[in-house]
Formats: sequence, structure tokens, C-alpha cells
Amino acid sequence: MSTFSQSYPMSGGDDQHSYIHNSTYQKAAMDGVEEKAKQYILEKFDLLTLNPDLSTFRIADFGCSIGPNTFHAIQNIIDAVKLKHLKESQENSLVSSLEFQVFFNDQSNNDFNTLFRTLPTSFEQEYLSVGVPGSFYGRVLPKNSIHIGTTSCTTHWLSGVPEQVFDKKSPAWNKSYIYCNNLIEEVTKAYKDQYTQDMSLFLKARAEELVPGGLMIMLGLYLPDGVAMYETWPGIVKDTMGDCLQEMAKLGITSHEKIEMFSMPLYFPYFSEVKGVIEENESFTIELMETVRHPLEAAELTNDFMISTYRAVMPTFIEKHFGNGKVDELFNRLAKKFSEHPIDFEKCKKQMIYYVVLKRK
Amino acid sequence: MSTFSQSYPMSGGDDQHSYIHNSTYQKAAMDGVEEKAKQYILEKFDLLTLNPDLSTFRIADFGCSIGPNTFHAIQNIIDAVKLKHLKESQENSLVSSLEFQVFFNDQSNNDFNTLFRTLPTSFEQEYLSVGVPGSFYGRVLPKNSIHIGTTSCTTHWLSGVPEQVFDKKSPAWNKSYIYCNNLIEEVTKAYKDQYTQDMSLFLKARAEELVPGGLMIMLGLYLPDGVAMYETWPGIVKDTMGDCLQEMAKLGITSHEKIEMFSMPLYFPYFSEVKGVIEENESFTIELMETVRHPLEAAELTNDFMISTYRAVMPTFIEKHFGNGKVDELFNRLAKKFSEHPIDFEKCKKQMIYYVVLKRK
Repeated sequence: MSTFSQSYPMSGGDDQHSYIHNSTYQKAAMDGVEEKAKQYILEKFDLLTLNPDLSTFRIADFGCSIGPNTFHAIQNIIDAVKLKHLKESQENSLVSSLEFQVFFNDQSNNDFNTLFRTLPTSFEQEYLSVGVPGSFYGRVLPKNSIHIGTTSCTTHWLSGVPEQVFDKKSPAWNKSYIYCNNLIEEVTKAYKDQYTQDMSLFLKARAEELVPGGLMIMLGLYLPDGVAMYETWPGIVKDTMGDCLQEMAKLGITSHEKIEMFSMPLYFPYFSEVKGVIEENESFTIELMETVRHPLEAAELTNDFMISTYRAVMPTFIEKHFGNGKVDELFNRLAKKFSEHPIDFEKCKKQMIYYVVLKRK
Repeated sequence: MSTFSQSYPMSGGDDQHSYIHNSTYQKAAMDGVEEKAKQYILEKFDLLTLNPDLSTFRIADFGCSIGPNTFHAIQNIIDAVKLKHLKESQENSLVSSLEFQVFFNDQSNNDFNTLFRTLPTSFEQEYLSVGVPGSFYGRVLPKNSIHIGTTSCTTHWLSGVPEQVFDKKSPAWNKSYIYCNNLIEEVTKAYKDQYTQDMSLFLKARAEELVPGGLMIMLGLYLPDGVAMYETWPGIVKDTMGDCLQEMAKLGITSHEKIEMFSMPLYFPYFSEVKGVIEENESFTIELMETVRHPLEAAELTNDFMISTYRAVMPTFIEKHFGNGKVDELFNRLAKKFSEHPIDFEKCKKQMIYYVVLKRK
């Protein structure tokens, strides 16, 4: 399958539109489930079997972006491993110290400068941190080198957009829709195939990078059966962005041709699709596989919150495609539309969260 | 000893004043000696003794800045290790593949974004690269994790400026000089003590990070016995910068007080000082210790070249101390001075290069 492979970093820096200040939605998803990882590590993760001479414990966050969520996720894992290590050392009368090395991975155009400059003091003082540039759909770390890997709200970002959605002659042509809203079955199929291929590559790479017995903790968004993206509020936001772009095209600020050549590299799978691709990779046992509601899905979100959240994750590739200055125009129009016609959250279908802990065989 | 500890990255980005485009002087120093490292690795470095099950070979460049010199230095080491690995594998009828993981270390305000974006294609495709933020005067990597470390033209940048050089009541007061030009004995002593302390910490940290049998390759500038910095062209450049700052103070662009509180965290040791601090650290054997002339020291350097080289390494901390817009003013004045009164290179005393290969006991 050929795709327009691109790289889509979150908004860098730390200004009002940055991911740093607008990642509460992702954080809320993590808060709901992180206690589960902690419990699993304390009760079932066996450090001694992993390696009795273990002196450096290596943790990687795949698709870390620029914090603060990545620091939070890593700290949570480290706290649990430290507790477990203390417990195992006491039980086995061992005196060994454990150094932590944390690998922050994201694409090479991620804002690593900001990531490094905003490392929490505890990280600077207690852990050895490194940045790992490169797409997590391939190998980014040596074989057998990582003890715990984690990824949160990342793998719905595909490696690229399937080419046929831009092809007017293809049944998978996405017309002037700007993302996979599940309205055209063949488009959904093309996106789904891309997702499956990407996830296979993700799991294959992680299987090589993890040590035997190592854990891969994955948190992501999915669509409950029978729900289509255009029925969810994130879907409505993107369809409304599409409407705004159409207005801009009518005014000559952009063109219909440009819109037809734009589609977001996003796919939110059904749970069975997540499960299917994980089971197909035979390098892992599934230790935990749960689904939970997103804590913020039940709340009435404000327009400001929604728009800030989207501005933090989307401007780079919108600007790249539509040109300088178009991001402000688009988001101003979006804000105006939602202030005139607020989303009726009660009527929206909900996305859900899956939480998976895999163990490397 | 208390110091004003600060961080002084090279100029980031890739514009005309960036370190990327103005690091030829440092590159020339490396070119002269890298063949020696290659030879040593081929003839004496024993990969099998290091670890017969070696699958990941880890190389670190301490104080890498933003290339291209770091890429060049690392490629040189990798080429040699690959050759040696092939040779050892053939001799011992082993079939093993070796993955390379390269650790690029520099202070956390180094421009890692540019470093990652300019990684040569060979690195992106063949090696696993990571960035390591943090001062190399402390631990930045796990114990026993690095097989070859390297550092080039870095350790003359001290961890900070000794406080007493700013103290009017101290015999080590540096008056209005802006660096250690060796005119005041007590100032030289204060800087020398700082250098010795810093280098001890550097070597202590590297001794912990290197595996037994691992190599530390160090290249640096030193002053031949009897030579003072103010007699060398780099010394003359800095003293002339001091003159320019005095002129700027007279015109009210900066103040004499500001100049008196400014001193560069630079110390160029005598060879005996380098040797002394290395020998004092008992974790290494000295495999190679040579001195060579800097290939460009014999050449007539152009004003443009000199000024570009200095602009690439100094603006961050000049701007931080003297404020916005002062860097251009200072370097314009410097350029004017040298076009009116060119440096007589024949009369200048020369700095020299030391090249050391240490083996971790």
C-alpha cells in the first residue's frame, strides 16, 4: 500500500497554542487507567526473572511529544518499578541499586529542545534521559534493550494517508471530506488497512526492542461498535473544519482542489481491530486488555477547550498543506461557528479508551 | 570552589552565523588525527574481549554540538569498528551482526532539533541515534553502557567561571579582561583550578559510563610551555573583543560594570596539566597520547573566517550578559578593527592539539 508518508508533530514551544498547555484531554485519558499499570507492575512484573544482574532499567515512551503528559506517564512507571524493586530486594536480601534511563521517542521534527528544557527537576536529578528521533512505525532502539515501553494516544496517527482517498477514480475517493468520518465505506476500508499495517509494524518493532519479559503499555482511543466518527464530537469538529475550509475556498483564501488533496492521517479503530492486530503479532502475551470511558467524554466541553485542544495537535500539517497564515483563519472561523451553533454533547456518540498491557514472550 | 555555573551552547540553527556552517577550524583539528583512532581500533581494540555476545555497540560523543563535525567523528569510529568486527568475525568463524547506537550528548539548551533534522542519511538508515541532554561534567549515561566515547575541542569550556575573578578584593580579580589571557597569575591559577576540577569530574563520569575495555578518545587544544593566551591569535581576538566592549561602554551602549562582571568560561591548559589530571584518574590506561600542530595554525586566516568562527561559538552567552542586539554591534566593531589592523599571524604564538586514547581498566 502506498501512502503519502509525512510527519505530524504536535505544536512545539510553550506559547498559548502549544501542546504543552493544551493536552488536558490526553492527560485525562491517562489518569483514568494509570493505577492499573502500577498494580500490574507491583503484583505481577518480575524484575528478578527479567535479569538478576539488572543495574540499568530502561523505559521508553513512543510518541512522547513534548510533555507534560510523557513526564507524568514515565514517573508513574518509575514509581511502581522502584517500589517493586525495593520489595524484591528485601524479599531476596539483595542490595542492588537501579539506575533509570528514559528514552523519549518521537518523530525527528518533534520539538525535542522544548522537551529537554522542560524536563522536571526530578528527571534531571534522578533519571538519565535521552531523546530518540524517528517514526515509531520502525525500529528506533536496539534489540533487547527496553524493559518497559509505553505509548498513549498516539497510534491513531497513521504513518501516512492512503493514496487512493485522493484519487477521483477510486471507490475510496474521500471527496472533499478532510478525514475518515466513516461516511464512505471504501474510505474507511483504506484507512483501516493502513492502520492495520502501521500497527503491525509498531508491534513488530517493539517486540524486537523489548527484552523477554518486558512490558508494553498501550493506551488509545477507539470507536464502540456501530458508532461512526461523524457522530462523535471530535468528528463533528473535523467536519466543521471541513465546512470552514469550503467557505475559505469560496472566498478565494484557499481552493477546492487543495481541500480535495487534504485528508488527515487519523484513524480511530474499532476495539476488535485493535485486538485483532495485537493477537496477530505472536511475540506478546496479553496481560491486561480493558476498555474504559474517557473521563471527559461525559462532560460538557467548552468551545475554547475544544478549539485549543485541536490547535495544539493540528497546525503543522494544516499550515504545510494550505500555506502560511491559514491556521489562524481556519480556527477563528471554527470558533465563530461553534459560538453560534454549539455542539450538543448529549446527542454525541462517545469514543472510548482501550488500555492494554502486553508482555514480551 | 564556587563558580557561576552556566550553559553555553554553540549557535543553533543553520543560518550564516550557525555553528554548522562555521566549524571548519574544529574540523581541521579532527582531520589531522582521526586516522590514529582508526588504526588503534583496527590493531589493538579487542571487541571479543569486550563482550563475546555483543549485539549493540554504543558510541557517545560528549559535547557534540550540532554537526557536521560530530557526524564525521562518529562515522570515522563506526567505520573502524565495522572493519574490526568483520575481521574478528572471520578469524573466529563467527556470524554475528552488530547494531550501532549513537549517543549525541550536549547541554540541554543545545539545538537538538537541528541536530536531529540534519542527521546524515547514513545515520538515519544504518544507526540508532539518540540525543542526551546534560552537562558532561556529570553522569549523563548509565554505568557500563558505552563502548567508545569521544570528545573534540570541548573541555576548554569550563562548567563555569571561578567567582573570585569578579571580586575586586581578590588577587584573582580579572579587572576588565574578558577571558583568562594569562596576564594575571592569580587569575590563571583560579581558572586552572576550575579546569582541573572539571576535568576530574569529566573523567570520573566517563570512567563510570564506559564498559571495562572501552575507549575514550579525546582531542583538545592546549598551550605549549611558555606561551600565554594573549600571544596567540585566539587570544588577540578576545582581547580585541574586550577593547570593542570598552568602546561600547564609552558610548553608553554597555557599561564598564557589565564588562567587569563578564569573563569567558574558557581555559586552555598546558600539556602537563592535561596529562596530570588524566594520570590522577586511575580508571584508565593511556593507550595513546600525542601532540600535533593545528593544521590551520600555520595558515594565514582571513578576518572573515576568524570572525565567523567566533560568532558561531560565542553569541549565546554574550547576548545573555550584555543584552539583545549587542552581538551584532560587537562583531561589527571587531570586523572593522581587524580590517584596519590585521593580525600578524607570523608573529603569533601557536596553540597545539593533544590527542589521547584512554582505555577503561
